[in-house]
Amino acid sequence: MHETTARTDEANRTAIERVLASEPWLVAVKPAGEVVPGLAPNMILHAAPPIAGAEVAGVLRGALVGAALSEGLAASAEDAEAALAAGTIVLGAAQDHGAMAGGAGSITASAPVLVVEDRVSGRRAFHFLMEGFGRALVLGMYDEEVERRLTWMRDELAPALDRALRELGGVDVRAIIAEALRRGDELHNRNAAATSMLVGLLAPAIAGEPVAIRGPVFAFLAGNPQFFVGVSLAAARLALDAGHGVEGSSLLTAVGANGRECAIKVSGLGEAWFTAPAEVPAGVYFDGHGPADAGAAIGDSFAVECAGLGASALCAAPALWPLVGADEARARAIDHDLRRITLAEHPRYRVPMLDDGGVPTGIDVLRVAQLGIRPVIDIAMTHREPGRGMIGFGLTSPPAACFERAAHALRARVA
Amino acid sequence: MHETTARTDEANRTAIERVLASEPWLVAVKPAGEVVPGLAPNMILHAAPPIAGAEVAGVLRGALVGAALSEGLAASAEDAEAALAAGTIVLGAAQDHGAMAGGAGSITASAPVLVVEDRVSGRRAFHFLMEGFGRALVLGMYDEEVERRLTWMRDELAPALDRALRELGGVDVRAIIAEALRRGDELHNRNAAATSMLVGLLAPAIAGEPVAIRGPVFAFLAGNPQFFVGVSLAAARLALDAGHGVEGSSLLTAVGANGRECAIKVSGLGEAWFTAPAEVPAGVYFDGHGPADAGAAIGDSFAVECAGLGASALCAAPALWPLVGADEARARAIDHDLRRITLAEHPRYRVPMLDDGGVPTGIDVLRVAQLGIRPVIDIAMTHREPGRGMIGFGLTSPPAACFERAAHALRARVA
Repeated sequence: MHETTARTDEANRTAIERVLASEPWLVAVKPAGEVVPGLAPNMILHAAPPIAGAEVAGVLRGALVGAALSEGLAASAEDAEAALAAGTIVLGAAQDHGAMAGGAGSITASAPVLVVEDRVSGRRAFHFLMEGFGRALVLGMYDEEVERRLTWMRDELAPALDRALRELGGVDVRAIIAEALRRGDELHNRNAAATSMLVGLLAPAIAGEPVAIRGPVFAFLAGNPQFFVGVSLAAARLALDAGHGVEGSSLLTAVGANGRECAIKVSGLGEAWFTAPAEVPAGVYFDGHGPADAGAAIGDSFAVECAGLGASALCAAPALWPLVGADEARARAIDHDLRRITLAEHPRYRVPMLDDGGVPTGIDVLRVAQLGIRPVIDIAMTHREPGRGMIGFGLTSPPAACFERAAHALRARVA
Repeated sequence: MHETTARTDEANRTAIERVLASEPWLVAVKPAGEVVPGLAPNMILHAAPPIAGAEVAGVLRGALVGAALSEGLAASAEDAEAALAAGTIVLGAAQDHGAMAGGAGSITASAPVLVVEDRVSGRRAFHFLMEGFGRALVLGMYDEEVERRLTWMRDELAPALDRALRELGGVDVRAIIAEALRRGDELHNRNAAATSMLVGLLAPAIAGEPVAIRGPVFAFLAGNPQFFVGVSLAAARLALDAGHGVEGSSLLTAVGANGRECAIKVSGLGEAWFTAPAEVPAGVYFDGHGPADAGAAIGDSFAVECAGLGASALCAAPALWPLVGADEARARAIDHDLRRITLAEHPRYRVPMLDDGGVPTGIDVLRVAQLGIRPVIDIAMTHREPGRGMIGFGLTSPPAACFERAAHALRARVA
């Protein structure tokens, strides 16, 4: 038992050092089919874990039907449902492709994705462009208004952002995140300052676009303070990917929920997902909604917290506290608990209110299983029925069973 | 005594309601000579209170010589010194002209000023364009590098900003300040988020400028996270001006320090300045500097705190705490104390960490005199000798004697 621990500690040191060394840069915006590994034209990538088309329910079902229609994989909602059930539209977990799908969002071949590159390893990660809140495919809603916006994003916004990023030689994501933590963002459900900084960096290049392009681009970004979340998710993917594949390491390197199940991957356990039924978040509901409306958690954004941001940096974002049903005491308690189950303080991502202490980063699944303390995720809550969208913000956690199963597998492998 | 109090309370209610109702919009950037009332071509406006040219010392002396040279009021430093001593260059307190001069900065006829307009009253207030830190006239330093930047600001930056503001129909300053408080600014020595938001709002219009103009403009703003401070000071002037001139009111409506004396005005006491020797701030010194280097406080920015921002909102800006030698306990203590000497909580300017409570706004000079609790100002500390610039950030207060003298005059007038 002691030897096991020493080997695990050594492996975890290696894994977390790689996580902390990650240097994410936003370098391009490209059609997913050009850049996401293994993304076939008839595929839709969604939040982990993988799920069969016939089993998809709730908000993700509406989202996948919408994605199929938007991508032209089906001519009607009925066709899309049939193709999903038959498997002619193939589903995949974005995190199995180095990509991320926040919320009920999805990635299809023609959809533009943010390309975030790790300057240390050259590894890349991807996330779709955040549409904003309201009626949006990321919330599983699809209609003419949604499609019009998606078409404009694909045909106008994405190429303009890509040209701007090429002109600028990319944008230093780590620097934005570090400063955004000093400006009240936690980089999951509050990205207002980070988005504002990104706009400032892109502005000189976007300014070179014709007014018919730059006008709507500036207006879209100004009205979308969550735009940076896609960058944050891709950066989290890169950081955790950097720590993946270290034999013996108990570092959580992937996590997501698909509205039905939640699952995690572990650095030393290859590509296996350790799965359990997803929990329903609790939080603060928009007017007219309550707990009975809430669906199980959905989104790859769980990974943001496990990379040290989101609720793991909740002390940085007091403006978010009332929205998720927290306060200073809760934010401090989450921080305190996390330090018992994480492997390091991030040297770059610091929280002024915590005496500039680094955010707790890198979940040790063995410690979670042993202590019963789980990571806390702040999350947009969606309606349990397809097409009803968002109903509030709340807090949730990956189920204990995910960690117990992973810990069991780790012990079996290391023994 | 009781009757006096009742009359004062009524007058103070009137005064503070006007302060809180102020709706500042940034509407233009113009040469000061075109817009600042009573600004003659041979004048230099500086931080209050008024001071005779022969008496000017320390950092302000270097700053006024620099301003005289930059404005072409003197051919050499010696000429400038002589003209200041002789009174052929006329000095004035910016706050006596509806304007503000932060730090050792000054306003001359050809220098561009931000024009901030109160949508309620149509009243206007003005502040020069913040050059940034380092070698800058605002810190009393003047050389070829400083002059080159000022020339570019006058000839390129100011007209471009003015065109942008005209195209946009102005910018809602109150909305920026309210959101910046949620993004870690206190709007005096931390304006990073507000500046970033301002850039985002201006960007679509600046984008229409030729690349030779917009390129340097975007670069300048990106490198100058304190740029918004001029807007904040002008907005503070507007808010306090709105409450000025209410018979019987003990509301502080102007305050500044000129590196030698500090002074305040009171709503019910007309244009009289109540003056006392300025205190030397204490705080955190840059490497190589210490308390012996520090000059007495300087700048009209004291008014920011008295309008509810700056150190009055220090709980909003944890990233600033270590820079001024504070921490959460100190920030909370300042807030707690201020609530005993202020007339209201601001309904729009709220601090997430304080359960979204409004900032304590409007200093009651009678309560200050009675309780011995003074407003706290977070301030850039300058060297005691001319031309040596900034040596750190710290905290200070207007001297107790200012309040005692004003309280005495109030009691005499009301009795």
